[in-house]
Amino acid sequence: MTPGSARVLEALRTIPRGKLSGAALSTSLGVSRAQIWKHVESLRARGYRIEGVTGGGYRFVAAPDRLYPEEVLPGLETRWLARSYVHLETTDSTNRLAFELGMRGAPHGATVVAEGQTAGRGRLGRSFFSPPHVNLYTSILLRPPLTLPEAPPLVLAAAVAVADTIAAAVHDPAAVSIKWPNDVQLGGRKTSGILMELQAEGSRVAFAVLGIGVNLNVDPGSFPAEFRDAATSVAAFQGRRVDRVAFARLLYGTLEAALDAFVAGGFERLRPRFEARFRMAGRPVRVVEAGGAELVGVALGIDADGALRVRRDDGGTARVIAGDVSLAKEASAS
Amino acid sequence: MTPGSARVLEALRTIPRGKLSGAALSTSLGVSRAQIWKHVESLRARGYRIEGVTGGGYRFVAAPDRLYPEEVLPGLETRWLARSYVHLETTDSTNRLAFELGMRGAPHGATVVAEGQTAGRGRLGRSFFSPPHVNLYTSILLRPPLTLPEAPPLVLAAAVAVADTIAAAVHDPAAVSIKWPNDVQLGGRKTSGILMELQAEGSRVAFAVLGIGVNLNVDPGSFPAEFRDAATSVAAFQGRRVDRVAFARLLYGTLEAALDAFVAGGFERLRPRFEARFRMAGRPVRVVEAGGAELVGVALGIDADGALRVRRDDGGTARVIAGDVSLAKEASAS
Repeated sequence: MTPGSARVLEALRTIPRGKLSGAALSTSLGVSRAQIWKHVESLRARGYRIEGVTGGGYRFVAAPDRLYPEEVLPGLETRWLARSYVHLETTDSTNRLAFELGMRGAPHGATVVAEGQTAGRGRLGRSFFSPPHVNLYTSILLRPPLTLPEAPPLVLAAAVAVADTIAAAVHDPAAVSIKWPNDVQLGGRKTSGILMELQAEGSRVAFAVLGIGVNLNVDPGSFPAEFRDAATSVAAFQGRRVDRVAFARLLYGTLEAALDAFVAGGFERLRPRFEARFRMAGRPVRVVEAGGAELVGVALGIDADGALRVRRDDGGTARVIAGDVSLAKEASAS
Repeated sequence: MTPGSARVLEALRTIPRGKLSGAALSTSLGVSRAQIWKHVESLRARGYRIEGVTGGGYRFVAAPDRLYPEEVLPGLETRWLARSYVHLETTDSTNRLAFELGMRGAPHGATVVAEGQTAGRGRLGRSFFSPPHVNLYTSILLRPPLTLPEAPPLVLAAAVAVADTIAAAVHDPAAVSIKWPNDVQLGGRKTSGILMELQAEGSRVAFAVLGIGVNLNVDPGSFPAEFRDAATSVAAFQGRRVDRVAFARLLYGTLEAALDAFVAGGFERLRPRFEARFRMAGRPVRVVEAGGAELVGVALGIDADGALRVRRDDGGTARVIAGDVSLAKEASAS
């Protein structure tokens, strides 16, 4: 959007449900009425509903359901997160693009958002179902002053922020849980996935990319068959559409605070919030570790550094730093 | 080099100082004498010295001082390291290229070698002086089954392999020391630098690139002024040129064994070899840590995970995972 169109949009919005005459707009913005008309046309092409009113004025009716910078950035309460904001109608993967921006020196907090992804990625090479205009797909570039051993809980910090943001959007915040390390669930079904990719020089993190996908308004009936039982969306759970722009804004603010807390004081600072949403304790789990080894036991809890503690079936205790965890079904009470 | 030229080279080499008639070559390789002549010409263009002898035969005189695959790979005793081997006359940075190969899915052990680098890189954004044809500049792509906290000692394992390879090339192996984390010194002067760059997905290492530069035959008089006092080359120390091909081969074999030992048993397996070359214990050090904080104290030793233990001047003990270490001059005994 051009600066001129942005000023016209702002002017029209300041009088909701009112109307503004072309002459008044022309005077207050210092451009011709023909120019005003061109800006209004380009705003309409972008999806804004602006009515013409008799006598040559305009009336702002509605913004499109898009994560445009002019929608998300006003009212965004962050210091560094999303201050550089790239919005795309579609891309292969927001994480791939953010990683490339990282390699080219983009700043801490640079954020990519896409309305849809053609090759959305999840952990371990899995895909993330990314239909357009219904969800949030965003990747944030971070340049945290961390060593490699300190980096893994970044994903846990992000999971806390996503979980708390979803909790603020539903009538039953207690229905939000975190499946270690970083799936956020609603009523036991996956609503959000987080993918962290990282580049390091020696033992220092050069940059990390946090990719966050949240199922907001997608109809679970459209999920690929293999996800249908295990996933849901906030709207499906809540029975009401989510305001994606407001959700993104709240998420960015919550995430910035969580990341700042983590960098300042380590995962310890976020552990109470993580544990409040951690429902795995006492449940049987199966973990496939980084090397491919399999571990079967009962989840005990989370360590101060974010590792998952598991009591193995043979009686010993294991700490899992990286692994793919399946929850066994809880035994029925018969 | 074409397969045909390689076969001609191999045939000529099998009879060192002898001569081979064009007719005999033509018969044994099943190609025309004109073809043989073309192959000899292309070998000469590549720097091989091959004399023509009266009666139409050829005599192999000498191979060029180049790290060509046909020089390094025969006799290389590795299972996976340098089995994929890219040799370049020049490149900006072997690490950058190996990292790109990593992003494109190149296999564990893929190796890049350049005769010279136009933008050789060292740790912390420093440059690595890389004049052509005199040293070794090589980068190895690794796909180790490690989590992020386990990755930092990879550079220490590489330092051990480089140090032991240099020690095998000099008359006084005890002159080789390691400055934590990964500079290898000869008589107290830097001879080698190692730069590790890494990409991770979540808490798992996706791939790591170990970049190794060793000053072999470079004349220290050609060093930029700021390095001249602090650096040397193996040849300058030893008073004799190093066979770069033999050095590269030995390094690859030693490095593969060190990395296999590390992945199988952790840094603990290599710690005795590291400690044997660690001369920092008891010396005053100044460490700039990842976050920029400065730490002044006395180096104590290396922990089981490769961290540097420092007794701070205020009496406490600190563990350094990532940092830039300066050794203070030892106090004179006056």
